[in-house]
Order: sequence, then structure tokens, then C-alpha cells
Amino acid sequence: MKIICSKSDLLKGVNIVMKAVPSKTTMKILECILIDASAGKIKFTANDMELGIETVVEGRIESRGIVALDAKLFSEIIRKLPDSDVTIESDEKRNTHIICEKAKFNIMGKEGEDFPNLTMIEKNERVIISQFTLKEVIRQTLFSIAVNESNKIMTGELFEISDNELKVVALDGHRIAIRNIELKDSYGSKKVIVPGKTLNEISKILSGETEDFVQIYFTQNHIMFEFDQTIVVSRLIEGNYFRIDHMISSDYETKVTINKKEMLDCIDRAALMVKEGDKKPIVISIDDEVMELKINSQIGSMDEIIDIKKEGKDIMIGFNPKFLMDSLRVIDDEDIDIYYVNSKAPCFIRDEKETYIYLILPVNFVA
Amino acid sequence: MKIICSKSDLLKGVNIVMKAVPSKTTMKILECILIDASAGKIKFTANDMELGIETVVEGRIESRGIVALDAKLFSEIIRKLPDSDVTIESDEKRNTHIICEKAKFNIMGKEGEDFPNLTMIEKNERVIISQFTLKEVIRQTLFSIAVNESNKIMTGELFEISDNELKVVALDGHRIAIRNIELKDSYGSKKVIVPGKTLNEISKILSGETEDFVQIYFTQNHIMFEFDQTIVVSRLIEGNYFRIDHMISSDYETKVTINKKEMLDCIDRAALMVKEGDKKPIVISIDDEVMELKINSQIGSMDEIIDIKKEGKDIMIGFNPKFLMDSLRVIDDEDIDIYYVNSKAPCFIRDEKETYIYLILPVNFVA
Repeated sequence: MKIICSKSDLLKGVNIVMKAVPSKTTMKILECILIDASAGKIKFTANDMELGIETVVEGRIESRGIVALDAKLFSEIIRKLPDSDVTIESDEKRNTHIICEKAKFNIMGKEGEDFPNLTMIEKNERVIISQFTLKEVIRQTLFSIAVNESNKIMTGELFEISDNELKVVALDGHRIAIRNIELKDSYGSKKVIVPGKTLNEISKILSGETEDFVQIYFTQNHIMFEFDQTIVVSRLIEGNYFRIDHMISSDYETKVTINKKEMLDCIDRAALMVKEGDKKPIVISIDDEVMELKINSQIGSMDEIIDIKKEGKDIMIGFNPKFLMDSLRVIDDEDIDIYYVNSKAPCFIRDEKETYIYLILPVNFVA
Repeated sequence: MKIICSKSDLLKGVNIVMKAVPSKTTMKILECILIDASAGKIKFTANDMELGIETVVEGRIESRGIVALDAKLFSEIIRKLPDSDVTIESDEKRNTHIICEKAKFNIMGKEGEDFPNLTMIEKNERVIISQFTLKEVIRQTLFSIAVNESNKIMTGELFEISDNELKVVALDGHRIAIRNIELKDSYGSKKVIVPGKTLNEISKILSGETEDFVQIYFTQNHIMFEFDQTIVVSRLIEGNYFRIDHMISSDYETKVTINKKEMLDCIDRAALMVKEGDKKPIVISIDDEVMELKINSQIGSMDEIIDIKKEGKDIMIGFNPKFLMDSLRVIDDEDIDIYYVNSKAPCFIRDEKETYIYLILPVNFVA
């Protein structure tokens, strides 16, 4: 195999597929990037058996072939080359030369044929969404999945499509994040659980441009994202997602409208009084036109008052400050509405059209 | 005690003295910043018993007093306050309120009188140097001190003043870094060993401006740096520094002039072939008008050729690539001169005026 590509194209390709290289594996071949120039295109592939990424790299094929190169080493070599054309040449013993200007590297490759192929996905109906929207919706929900693997389903996100609506849900037992997105077209109903890791990695590759699009394909056990010159194939999480409809209610006793940044900054300050691992709640008292936020711990105490608009009853309720902050950080609205029922029931942060709903369970506190 | 300062002035002061707060200590009081408003000024002090920093903070004293506050907590609180005036008020039980706009913190302070004073330094003759020059000379030499504490003297730098010359030396047994600086005035001879930690911390506080100056005072066991509204007092390392004169020679068999960036980039690439902890040398062959750099390891091999100007004999010599890179990184000249004697003797990278000399010992290699 002999190919010639620009350093920048190689680097772009390497950076994309690196997201699917496992950090730890017992299968040595998975630590490689597969360079496949056996057909008319140069393709880079990485695959951790859950998540696989393939991308086409611009360049010239001088002689067809296929080789697998250690991903970390190959990526570091490419990164440090001068900004010029790079020749990658591999002989039948997989002895590989990487040559750029006067720099010549020689490293040993592995048999390309040993590299596990990406799962073939039949391209049935596709769902189209902008890269911007997909990247945003991941950012706005992914913090709510469970990090603990004890309930596998909680480590993924529900992607539910019906007609022209995409609903994305993440929950971890203490909170729920829901985003409802209007799609340009209508589609048949689909309901899958996508692993959080896949979403995290894909969001790093997405351009985030509103003019760039992603095509999403579904099979029984897999989801495939196709965009630019890249395809990402991931296993789905098996099982039925939680029925969240009965957890969401639009009844409330208290509605508060508050400046998001003021509230976030205040909780951020208050959280200084909580040592890591400690579970001190922030206590919120809503009284007429003000919200008082208060925290008390061994470290000290903090309290602050924020002007609000209020409808309904006064209330006093405690929360894990981190959960409030996580949700507030991903809401772009300047002012937000928070709905409370009582001090034992979850609060809801949601906009009128319900493009977002963040449910957070309260915690007990000593007044 | 009651003082009122702007958030930005407080933050500036906290950031300066934090450099002397020990990360680990058995004396709890040293984890504090001392706020001293007992005289006409507001002074912040931190002290790890080796290194002490004191800085004056702008502000208004409403009621005199002194209190010690946990440094980490205090600094985080200040950092997260709104950009406004901050009131710090401490009662006789050291119960301390920090109030900014509507945010009110309450934390417990410690007895200010328990905080160890900085060593009093008699202000004898002072040496004056620009903040820029001091910051630069630390950056250009500090990488050469020993990290291993087994030889205490190697963990510091020699500061030697005679007439209008300041010589700064760092060495670790494998290499020596020397910088010679011309001072504006002439001074009596001084020769001290300043701890590397002190220099590292002070270089983070220095503005780096050529128009700002540092005044340096010396005593038997201490050095004091005075600049802006800040004083830094450090113990010196006891003992006699190594006699380096007989290690430095201006004889050579080969002189090479090379583009610094080309050489640095090439070694940086070559170093990819060396696993951490491995001691594979980079082998340099100088032959007519080219330098060939070559490295061979279990990972693979790399070689590259760089055009040079050469005087004298051809030579082949091996080095630890890291040591070459460390020196090349801190030299600002576009082209540099490297002097070689033979493959067993150190090479010298130095300019004609000897404002810098970097000596690096070679290592054995298999050709």
C-alpha cells in the first residue's frame, strides 16, 4: 500500500476515528487505526466493538492495500509532522514508512484483514437532523444519565421519534432531562436507547453547524450516524426505557420566574459550602417576590436573596445544588420558569412550549 | 475587623499569596491566609516556613483587626463573588462574614496572632532587575535543576552577582544551564543558592514587564524580592555551589550552526519513538553540511536530515532527546551554534557573548 495525503487531512481523519479507539482492550488489534486503501478510497476505521467510526480521508492512492497501525503512535506521528504532504507506504510484511519532507518514520503495522469490520447497516428510512441540533441536544441532556453501570438503561438516552418530533430523554433516578425537537420531515415511530458513550464521542466529532446535516439509520440493535465523510455505528442498549409520562405533571402550586444567570451564580457560590461527597442541600424559600437560597454546613453558611416573579403559594424546599446547576447551565433562556408542587415533590424547569423539561427530585432538609 | 475592598483587588491579592500556601502541612494555621488590617494598610500574608509572601491589598479599613482564613475556601469564595465591593467583617470570636451584594457568607476564621510572621529582612544593599528579565531567566534555567531531593544543592539555582553581572546557574548532573545578565548598576559580590520552588512560584507572580522592577535583598540565610506591593521572602539553600568553571570549556573540534526550530521539531518527532522511562538516545551524525538525527527503538525508527553550517571535524554523538529539547525550547535565537569535542564529551550550545551556555552530557549509543 502506498498513499499520499496532506498532513492536515490525515490529522482530521485520525482525530475523528480516535474517538472509537478503546483505551483498554484485550484485543490488541483494536488499539489500531485501520487504513484501507484497497478500493478507490482511503478509509480510516476504528472500532471498540460497541462503537465503530469510519471516515474517508482525501488523498492519492499510489498502490492499493490495507494495514492497521497503532492508533496512539500513528496519531502522535501525524500530529508532529511538518505541514506538508505525507507518504504512507506499507510492504507485504506490514513494515510501514511514514515520510514527510526530510522526516522518515519506520514502524511495524498489523495485518489489516484481522481488523473487525463495522457492522453493516441496511440503509432503510433515514432521519435527518442538523449537526448543530444533534450536538446541542446531547449537551443539554447527557449530564443526566447515570454514571453507575448498575442499571444499564440509565447509562443511555432515549431517542424517540414520532411524526416530525424527536424526544430525547436522560435520567439517573434523581432527575430527568427531556428535550423535544421539531424535525423538518415526518417519520415512522422509532424508540431506541443510545449508549451515553456513543453520544459523548459523536458530539465531539459533529461540526455544530446548522447547515451541516446528519443522517440517522436504525436497525434492531444498531444506530448509524452518517455525516460529512464519516459514519458512526453503535450498538443500542437493549430493553424497554422507563415510562416517564406518569412522572411528568403539569400541575403546580407555585410558579417562579427567575433570571437564570443570577440563580446559577448564586448556587455556584453556595456550593462552596459543600465538601465533595457531602450531601448538604441548598434550601430554597420562596416568599412573596423573593427567593432566598441558603446553605449550612460544617464549613460555614451562605445565604442570598434573588428577586423573582411568583404565582401561587410560598414554599420551602431543598435540592442537591449540583443537580440544579447542571440543568441551569444547559438552558439558554435568560429567564426561566420553575414549577413546584410541595417540598416532597419534584420541581420542573420548563418553557411554555415544552422544548425542554428538567425534573429534579428534592431532598430532605432541616429548616 | 471590618474592611471593604473590590472583588478584583481581593482576587489579585489572594492569587499572589496563594503561591506560598503549602498543599500539605501539619500546622493547620499555615493553610490560612492572614488578613492583617491592624495598622493602616490591608495586608495578606501566606507562609509555608520556607517561602513567605506578603502583599498589600487596596481597600478601606472600617475597623482595625486581624484574622486568618482558610486559604482555599477564602480564595474560592472571592473568585465566585459578583464583580462588586466586598465587605469582610470578623468579630472577636473570629466569626467572619463575607458580604457582596446580596450574597452573604459566614465562615470561621482562626486567631491571626497564631500566624507565623515572615522573617524580618534588614534592607541592606539592594540589587535591581526588571521583572521581565527575572521572569525570563527563571524560565530559561529552571528546567535544569534536579527534581530529586537527594542532593539538596541541585534543587536550587546559583545566583551570583559581581559588579554589574548576574550569573544564574542550574544543573542536575546531566546538564548545566547558565545565563549571564548585565545589570544596570554595579554591586558587591554575592553568591547564594535560591530554592527552585521559590523561583517557580515567584515567576508566576512577576508581571513580566520590562518597565516594572524587582528589588532583591540578601541576608546570610534569606533572600527577599520586593516588587509592586508585594514582598517574597525565602530561605536560601545552605552549602557551597558546585565549581562549574572547570566544567565549561571553549575548546571544540566541531562547530555547527543550525536553525533552532528545525532541530527542535525534528527531535520532538524523534522522541515519539521513545517510551516513557526508556533511555533510547537520539544519535546525531554531522557530516559535511548536514546533520542526520536518528533514533531506533522497539517502537520503530525515525531519521531526518537537516542542513547546517559546519566548521571542523565530522562527529557522531548520542543524547537524551529530552535534554536537547529542554534547552532548545528556551533559546530565542533563530540560529544557534553547537560546539562538540568528541562523542564522550559534553556539547555546548552558546551564543558568542555567552549570555547563555547550555552544557549537555552525551550518552552511549550503538551505531
